[in-house]
Amino acid sequence: MAESWSEKQIIAEVLAPLAARAPGAFGLSDDAALLKTEAGMEQIVTLDSLIEGVHFRSADPARFVAKKALRVNISDLAAKGTEPFAWFLALGLPPTRGEDWIRDFAKGLQEDQDRFGLHLHGGDTVRSPDRVVLSVTMIGRCVAGRSVRRFGARPGDAIYVSGTIGDSALGLLTGAGEGPVDLSDADSMFLARRFLLPEPRTRLAGALRVHANAAMDISDGLVGDLQSMCVAGKTSAEVAIERIPLSDAARRAIDADQALLATALGGGDDYEILAAVDNQRRNAFEREAAEAGVPVTRIGRIVDGRQPPKFIDEHGRERSFASAGFSHF
Amino acid sequence: MAESWSEKQIIAEVLAPLAARAPGAFGLSDDAALLKTEAGMEQIVTLDSLIEGVHFRSADPARFVAKKALRVNISDLAAKGTEPFAWFLALGLPPTRGEDWIRDFAKGLQEDQDRFGLHLHGGDTVRSPDRVVLSVTMIGRCVAGRSVRRFGARPGDAIYVSGTIGDSALGLLTGAGEGPVDLSDADSMFLARRFLLPEPRTRLAGALRVHANAAMDISDGLVGDLQSMCVAGKTSAEVAIERIPLSDAARRAIDADQALLATALGGGDDYEILAAVDNQRRNAFEREAAEAGVPVTRIGRIVDGRQPPKFIDEHGRERSFASAGFSHF
Repeated sequence: MAESWSEKQIIAEVLAPLAARAPGAFGLSDDAALLKTEAGMEQIVTLDSLIEGVHFRSADPARFVAKKALRVNISDLAAKGTEPFAWFLALGLPPTRGEDWIRDFAKGLQEDQDRFGLHLHGGDTVRSPDRVVLSVTMIGRCVAGRSVRRFGARPGDAIYVSGTIGDSALGLLTGAGEGPVDLSDADSMFLARRFLLPEPRTRLAGALRVHANAAMDISDGLVGDLQSMCVAGKTSAEVAIERIPLSDAARRAIDADQALLATALGGGDDYEILAAVDNQRRNAFEREAAEAGVPVTRIGRIVDGRQPPKFIDEHGRERSFASAGFSHF
Repeated sequence: MAESWSEKQIIAEVLAPLAARAPGAFGLSDDAALLKTEAGMEQIVTLDSLIEGVHFRSADPARFVAKKALRVNISDLAAKGTEPFAWFLALGLPPTRGEDWIRDFAKGLQEDQDRFGLHLHGGDTVRSPDRVVLSVTMIGRCVAGRSVRRFGARPGDAIYVSGTIGDSALGLLTGAGEGPVDLSDADSMFLARRFLLPEPRTRLAGALRVHANAAMDISDGLVGDLQSMCVAGKTSAEVAIERIPLSDAARRAIDADQALLATALGGGDDYEILAAVDNQRRNAFEREAAEAGVPVTRIGRIVDGRQPPKFIDEHGRERSFASAGFSHF
């Protein structure tokens, strides 16, 4: 039952508990948060917005929307080799979203901030006429000079990705009822869930901090994001298509319809890590990733040049994929 | 002419220049910003959202919307005794806002970040189906332990406000064509402009840091915000109504219609400073405020108790004002 809450009620009843263990949040009773800064550390700040009807569907469970809003930012920070500790919420709520929705939303926030070890420090709750709009600003920290940038990849570096690629883009199609066809229910569910709820690779942050020359999370698709990394580092890349890790579900979908390979590589919302690792450090990186329990796969290498990355198939032919997939704009 | 720009164009052409002098912003080419933190300092973080049709009117000039988005945050930080240095922009743009609007918006951002000495460090630009939605996250800093909180006011403290109170609430009525009636064009313009564009009291930050036991900016109206300060500090307050500083335009409006006094004191968007200053430090605070060029007026004192602040008129009678004015929700 949608009954509109006041801003004060929302803050006191569902948001303040999320700030309870953050001394600098002052129980959200002040209009600004205090962050103590430590010598020898640096902070990494990221921000992502989600708008109802653009980045999530109106019918998506509020708990999942909440988790996604946190996780896309956590994923960004993990790729930088940092651990998040503080976050801020800008929340615009339409009158149609009542107490039930808000409590479910807060439940998702609570579960994930507990799981990932961060605390709400502040924000702003406002009325939005017709859509839920939200932005999360998140702050991570690490030892000064150790965070990882998008640029910095060097010719000869090995290119790694975590997990599997393309599930989310295929899951978006599945969720929209547009295929991949003839998939089992289990495969469809798996892919749809990968779209609904990314799994940020926070446990890879340590290995990235030590071994990666460049890293970013894959949010706009492997093809587009690898190109972004190459543009930022003024390099090019070569990728062996058959090395790109696919889930069993994605593999079966692509086997049934080869055109879906382009969807998997060009689509977005993977929230896996893309990293360029010094060739001398491959073994150490792989060992530390394994110790952290994060699967990583070497898919190619950084090469000299300015041309877009080349994707080579098992016959040595270059294949071309559009990065049309999923521009967040 | 509304022609939709791509996210990349907007970032490269109008947002990246705003980050040009912030090394940690990496020209907005990375997906997270780097903030170096210094020993012995603390950071204050604030966030405010503006939604088209709620916090500004569709016809408001983009340049003013941009300035207001920055200034409401700058005002928050000034009240905490801190100087802002970094900000982050979450911007949702509907297809109806084309290049002209965006350039005008960026012009406002550039003018104000130059004026107030801060730099865009990152953000997220997304598509919004039908409204401009924006959030600004802003970070200020000062020597550790010196920022000022909303709580902390003590019985006996003198209550000060900066500038004049109520112009903006009266200006909102004027802008809506709902009175105050019989005002001169000059007075109407003055009040409307005070609503459109707040003037954050950054130059008072130093005096607040040294002398204030508690401070906040007045965004929800003097009546409501003084009550918030008292609740946070577990105190009460007494205010002499005739001491509350009014602009000449507001004075003439209230003289013409006494009911507008409640609008002026209960309304919001003043973005003046409300501060509780130790009685022993009154002279020093007033001197430093004068040196900073910020007019401040002592309007009452903090007293023991938990009851809502009392507003006393020139005949010694208590007057009651609703804080209905302007809840941002």
